[in-house]
Amino acid sequence: MNGADILCETLLANGIDTCFANPGTSEMHFVAALDRQPQMRCVLGLFEGVVTGAADGYARMADRPAVTLLHTGPGLANGLANLHNARRAHTPMVNIVGDHATYHLIYDAPLTSDIDSLARPMSDWIGRADSTANVGARTEEAIRAALTGAGGISTLILPADAAWTEGTFPPPTVIAPPPLPLPDPAQLRAAAEALRNGRQTTILVSGLALRAPQLELLDRIAQKTEARLLAQQANGRMQRGAGRIALDRVPYVIDQALACFATTEQVILIGAKAPVGFFAYPGKPGSMLPESCAVLELAPPHHDLPAAIAALADEVGLAPVARLAPRQRPDLPRGVLTPDAIALALAAAMPEGAIICDESITSGRDFFGATYGAAPHDFLQLTGGAIGDGIPMAVGAAVACPDRKVIGLQADGSGMYTVQGLWTQARERLDVLTIVFANRRYQILHGELLNVGAGPAGQNARRMLDLDDPALDWVGLARAMGVEAARADTAEAFCELLRAALTRKGPFLIEAVI
Amino acid sequence: MNGADILCETLLANGIDTCFANPGTSEMHFVAALDRQPQMRCVLGLFEGVVTGAADGYARMADRPAVTLLHTGPGLANGLANLHNARRAHTPMVNIVGDHATYHLIYDAPLTSDIDSLARPMSDWIGRADSTANVGARTEEAIRAALTGAGGISTLILPADAAWTEGTFPPPTVIAPPPLPLPDPAQLRAAAEALRNGRQTTILVSGLALRAPQLELLDRIAQKTEARLLAQQANGRMQRGAGRIALDRVPYVIDQALACFATTEQVILIGAKAPVGFFAYPGKPGSMLPESCAVLELAPPHHDLPAAIAALADEVGLAPVARLAPRQRPDLPRGVLTPDAIALALAAAMPEGAIICDESITSGRDFFGATYGAAPHDFLQLTGGAIGDGIPMAVGAAVACPDRKVIGLQADGSGMYTVQGLWTQARERLDVLTIVFANRRYQILHGELLNVGAGPAGQNARRMLDLDDPALDWVGLARAMGVEAARADTAEAFCELLRAALTRKGPFLIEAVI
Repeated sequence: MNGADILCETLLANGIDTCFANPGTSEMHFVAALDRQPQMRCVLGLFEGVVTGAADGYARMADRPAVTLLHTGPGLANGLANLHNARRAHTPMVNIVGDHATYHLIYDAPLTSDIDSLARPMSDWIGRADSTANVGARTEEAIRAALTGAGGISTLILPADAAWTEGTFPPPTVIAPPPLPLPDPAQLRAAAEALRNGRQTTILVSGLALRAPQLELLDRIAQKTEARLLAQQANGRMQRGAGRIALDRVPYVIDQALACFATTEQVILIGAKAPVGFFAYPGKPGSMLPESCAVLELAPPHHDLPAAIAALADEVGLAPVARLAPRQRPDLPRGVLTPDAIALALAAAMPEGAIICDESITSGRDFFGATYGAAPHDFLQLTGGAIGDGIPMAVGAAVACPDRKVIGLQADGSGMYTVQGLWTQARERLDVLTIVFANRRYQILHGELLNVGAGPAGQNARRMLDLDDPALDWVGLARAMGVEAARADTAEAFCELLRAALTRKGPFLIEAVI
Repeated sequence: MNGADILCETLLANGIDTCFANPGTSEMHFVAALDRQPQMRCVLGLFEGVVTGAADGYARMADRPAVTLLHTGPGLANGLANLHNARRAHTPMVNIVGDHATYHLIYDAPLTSDIDSLARPMSDWIGRADSTANVGARTEEAIRAALTGAGGISTLILPADAAWTEGTFPPPTVIAPPPLPLPDPAQLRAAAEALRNGRQTTILVSGLALRAPQLELLDRIAQKTEARLLAQQANGRMQRGAGRIALDRVPYVIDQALACFATTEQVILIGAKAPVGFFAYPGKPGSMLPESCAVLELAPPHHDLPAAIAALADEVGLAPVARLAPRQRPDLPRGVLTPDAIALALAAAMPEGAIICDESITSGRDFFGATYGAAPHDFLQLTGGAIGDGIPMAVGAAVACPDRKVIGLQADGSGMYTVQGLWTQARERLDVLTIVFANRRYQILHGELLNVGAGPAGQNARRMLDLDDPALDWVGLARAMGVEAARADTAEAFCELLRAALTRKGPFLIEAVI
């Protein structure tokens, strides 16, 4: 048994049985060890952004970490953007980054780099197994860190010689996740008092507060106390649809976000952060709250949010019943294919238990409002603003939940970042429907160019913001990677493709020309 | 005039007139400033790996830096792998990384990250323009650092408010590149003495030593002193072909590299590093040189290599004429399409002045040996081992040299890393022929699995090393991004496609099924 074997054994003993991978030479012994463990599912991504984004989507739906396998510093670097998103979603993840053998680093061979410096900004825990003897212990630390709080990004650097050297090892430990902190009694009392003081109050929630049972309790608290319940702008996972609470989110657009809180006198945070501008805009504030608004944090993201919500319910009482959204089935849209038409078509047709992976940026903003009464579903968002998470997230969600339909709402610009993920959908026969909003431009940036006061786009700006010369053929891209696909440019054609796609299993892509 | 304007003015004043870009909201004022400077050529990449790889290819051929425009930490992260390659090639480059407004960082908005930590491993210089007043000075520092030594990677972090705030500025300074260090007289004497001491000597060269005039001098030195002249394994740019010196490189495969130096008693380094294993392999040494081999460094990469070579020639004298490779035109291959057949077809057909961007990994190893007598060409390699540099490098080389044919030798596995670069080839109508070696597997890793003693691939390993289920349709991928393409699976079909592709301008892709 070598270091790579004990690493695999430790992962499997802790229920980590899915490995999203793109290996290189320094990871060959780890690959060989995975070969000896057929119960580990190995899923290849053709680029590391697919690997880490898939691990993110997997853990959001499985509620447990996957492991990634990345090749030295540059391989990690390629995966960092989606680690950034995963970290902002409090996703648990264990990254194994192979490195040169310890004694080889002095040679500064071409692939040598400072992996620690690269990993630090996007990791909650970093460790290095500097010999075979400590691979097991370091792996256990990595798993423990991933299971701490709401979830953490662990990055374990594995030198090749630590992987390949033989040793004898004690059996791996099953890690008990550290208990989540309970609400501080003083903060609980303060929140309860605030909810009784008659001021205009928003309860702002995220994380595990967005699961259906917690949202029902929160809605009954909000009714009882006449507070407004609101979700953070971007959230890792939210349970919604008919029979659940119809919850709004903080708007992305800064003027809308400011208006949303204009009369708010106090905010109570449960797993959410106080709302801030996604970007700075000249002459506009950074905080979305009025200056006089009080902010009370009942529970930060890494606390036991269900316990905090239950304790708050005990303090302030509950309305008798939660206001569950009724099932609504809009008529199928007709005529011009618009983002709104796509939203209505989805609201009418998407199946119960669908998992929505939303990286639609501007084009998908209609979806949320149109689907309060759609079949109940999970809604997964881009949490860190680093585009290129959509297609990989759908990969991971589909691996985690093979019996549920995954629907990716995908902007074309961000979709190109990790387009390679379509191939993994084909290879693994994943039940993913990707809807590409093909507006053939970075639409958001045309708006932002105006928002920041930089004026409308001229020739050079259009060369950097428009994707229409040549237009991307998403049907061709998908088919070239083994995913069946078709194009729609009317609402009727879209509805027909959607119906067909939802009655079959396996990957499919609709290019919605809007 | 705002900070973004002075940044553009400073770049342009220093001849940096090509901007490879993928902007975001925090860079909108820089985009607007570029809009006011039509003499700046803005080239959009649909992923940051394309942007940095293109800037690398551009500078290797233009011998001056391009500027890149990247969006916050994750945008930089996406470009790091090709910055790693560029740094290993000593490519000059100025990266502008937009960041939140300085006063917005305290809010930890979703896209906030530690950009410095991300930039450090792949940058020779990092700076932050923390106010409009110092944008000009910081830009000048960044340019100076990029022009120092053989070339450096400068990363300038540009907060949005430093870009958008108005100011009055002195006119930009034209930066004089710091003079390159001349050879140390003692090292020069030592090298000259070594070349006379009768031992088996290799002169190992890289960088500017690989340009045609320097190679001719080096060949005459080698003849005179009976030394062997050899190039580093991977080099940023090498001038070769008929009428030039036929120079071997250090082999990649470790046993071949060890054999290459088995009888070498001394090595003289000129812009090259002492040869080491690309990876560590169990039971094999890290240095490719015999333990008793003496290593003399005449000039490190950042020295004035042409001056060092001229000085060495003065010391040891020159053979009367350089041994220039005769023109050789192999017969066109027939039958089965193999990497060797592709190499022969290229040797016969590639035009004078072609720029070869080689990321063919295992499949292209035949090319080098087959083309000593091909039409004279430049040969650009993957220098840092971070795959995904090929397609972008071809983009940049074609932007730098619009009158020359660029030929990308592209492995399929690494090609998928930055496949988005094909779209930029189409958009910019670049004269690039991409030849994809479609072996439908990470062929090198099958070999490495054996090399490191991990045994042949089983089920899980094959799931991570093979790309055949489904096979990638490279013709479809290219066409979907606007690049004409065709497939060849015989030598005859390949030769016919090659002939057709070389008699037209503009991007084309051949999927060579091998």
